[in-house]
Amino acid sequence: MSRFMNDKYASLEEYVPGEQPTDMKYIKLNTNESPFPPSPAVFKAVNDAEIGKLELYPDPECGSLTKKLAETYGVEPENIFIGNGSDEVLNFAFMAFCQNGAAFADITYGFYEVFADLHGIDAKVIPLKEDFSICPQDYMGIGRAVFIANPNAPTGMQLSLEDIEAIVKSNPDNVVVVDEAYVDFGGNSAVELTKKYDNLLVVMTYSKSRSLAGGRLGFSIGSKEITTDLRKIKYSTNPYNINRLTLVAGEASLNDDKYYKDNCQKIIRNREYTVKKLEALGFEVLPSKANFIFARTDRMSGDMLYKKLKENGILVRHFTKERINDYLRITIGTEEQMQALVAMIKKILEGEAEAR
Amino acid sequence: MSRFMNDKYASLEEYVPGEQPTDMKYIKLNTNESPFPPSPAVFKAVNDAEIGKLELYPDPECGSLTKKLAETYGVEPENIFIGNGSDEVLNFAFMAFCQNGAAFADITYGFYEVFADLHGIDAKVIPLKEDFSICPQDYMGIGRAVFIANPNAPTGMQLSLEDIEAIVKSNPDNVVVVDEAYVDFGGNSAVELTKKYDNLLVVMTYSKSRSLAGGRLGFSIGSKEITTDLRKIKYSTNPYNINRLTLVAGEASLNDDKYYKDNCQKIIRNREYTVKKLEALGFEVLPSKANFIFARTDRMSGDMLYKKLKENGILVRHFTKERINDYLRITIGTEEQMQALVAMIKKILEGEAEAR
Repeated sequence: MSRFMNDKYASLEEYVPGEQPTDMKYIKLNTNESPFPPSPAVFKAVNDAEIGKLELYPDPECGSLTKKLAETYGVEPENIFIGNGSDEVLNFAFMAFCQNGAAFADITYGFYEVFADLHGIDAKVIPLKEDFSICPQDYMGIGRAVFIANPNAPTGMQLSLEDIEAIVKSNPDNVVVVDEAYVDFGGNSAVELTKKYDNLLVVMTYSKSRSLAGGRLGFSIGSKEITTDLRKIKYSTNPYNINRLTLVAGEASLNDDKYYKDNCQKIIRNREYTVKKLEALGFEVLPSKANFIFARTDRMSGDMLYKKLKENGILVRHFTKERINDYLRITIGTEEQMQALVAMIKKILEGEAEAR
Repeated sequence: MSRFMNDKYASLEEYVPGEQPTDMKYIKLNTNESPFPPSPAVFKAVNDAEIGKLELYPDPECGSLTKKLAETYGVEPENIFIGNGSDEVLNFAFMAFCQNGAAFADITYGFYEVFADLHGIDAKVIPLKEDFSICPQDYMGIGRAVFIANPNAPTGMQLSLEDIEAIVKSNPDNVVVVDEAYVDFGGNSAVELTKKYDNLLVVMTYSKSRSLAGGRLGFSIGSKEITTDLRKIKYSTNPYNINRLTLVAGEASLNDDKYYKDNCQKIIRNREYTVKKLEALGFEVLPSKANFIFARTDRMSGDMLYKKLKENGILVRHFTKERINDYLRITIGTEEQMQALVAMIKKILEGEAEAR
């Protein structure tokens, strides 16, 4: 920290993204990306004509993409807010809606804690139950903004829509943010509930099911009023937050929904395969509705297994945090990747693997 | 504002970007974009192979582009910070370095005031001199962070490097941010001074001289310490702030510096042409080192001339702010565009123009 830095950030600990190593080629199962490229429609949309307009600012209203997202999700354009990745949307939500403080789980997306810290927000961190499920009663009438990843990360576990609705209903004076980054892999979306409750904000991303993590695109669906608030923050921060090529890629994606839905089905199948195989090897795997699983075994510590997998060219995510430091979060990739993972874990546990 | 919105934003007035109209085709001279497309190198860099990696997160370190920028500007990678447009860099600088408050001119980039307001920063707004020049003495030892656009917007006028250095030297305990968005059109850059002063941050953008406003890319050059602070804010806000295609486009741009330098020379020539023609029509034009000019005439109010130009298919920027509401900010475009502008202004002043 330089001597010029604002004291209020003295103890701020920034978010640590998953490794993006360049030293060698890995089977990369550590940042929950899609193993599939974007749709052919995206390749077609990002063309020379669009590149040839890059000297002009993008539409700060994101008008065309907003309209298309509204159609796709059955809401009005006034209910859609578009961000430079869902992280930006979440950051703005923390800025806008946390005057009474924020509440989120102890084991969830690690960025919530960073956002709260960054903006000096009083955060109530609520432990998950012993089985890593969320106890909905903990959030009822809590009197502060609520942030729930659903399915949750890194557990992959899902809260029912009934529980979500009960939490939203019991907090009419605070916004409940449901972060549905991983909803497209068998989860239940709360989008329909946004029509009934003006305090519900559903946040989504193109980074997982839509194969566009490299494009940086996220959005939210919520009442006109809270969407207007997010727009106010955006126009006071970075009005041109989405670049031209991502705007056209995002719109083209929505024209090829079948491609992405088919990919999600493949990932769900590969998830089921992986769970079955790992359980057969003696793993305990939390029930996942996401494009990753969270698993541990008594046969080897999480840290050791992470390291041995990395040595052998397979990257997964390991958190050193208490309660979960024995678990690995494993992104679900292609069938071949998951077969390779299972085979390598088997080898490692049997003590046969040698570093490449 | 919804009932959930944090009170501290109750009086926040967001930034209003220049019009991006879609109702008809204009000669667009209102947002200081380049009239030239990106370099052929950019078309080549944004290819199917890169689109085919969009399912993967971009490098949050922006390692390759950082290295290339460092080489281009003769500094080390540790001195480079990359943002999603220079607006993001400026926003982070306001967050990081304004514990003692901020100071900037009354007539300058309008976003400074919005950033200060957004973050609850005490802002000292210092009037420009009668001739719209900055009085450097006003900023000497001012004891707060200083933000100077150089050349200034919307005046286009430049402060000398001697004056910049004196301001930096007299404020050793505060960061001086020199916003060089428009420096490539004949201005003098303070980059060399960043090697001498650890409290100087020079901010640049790809949106003007590099024909990449639609890609969203900006950066800063400064001491390792203040660059580290900006990185901390980024990693606590949006680590993956730059999308993959913009990263490769930004790097490709730097490989074709001649293309951009030639374009800048064309714009300087067109600026000189336009100034001469407007002066001949009785305009007063401030001395510009930017890709725009700031001009007024006794023959018609700024508001009226703006409206009549718009009716006739030419878009320029008019600010309703006191002191400058009689001026128009006119982006310098191609030779043909400037000829059309001059001809239309002549017609309008002679009362001959009819709306299309």
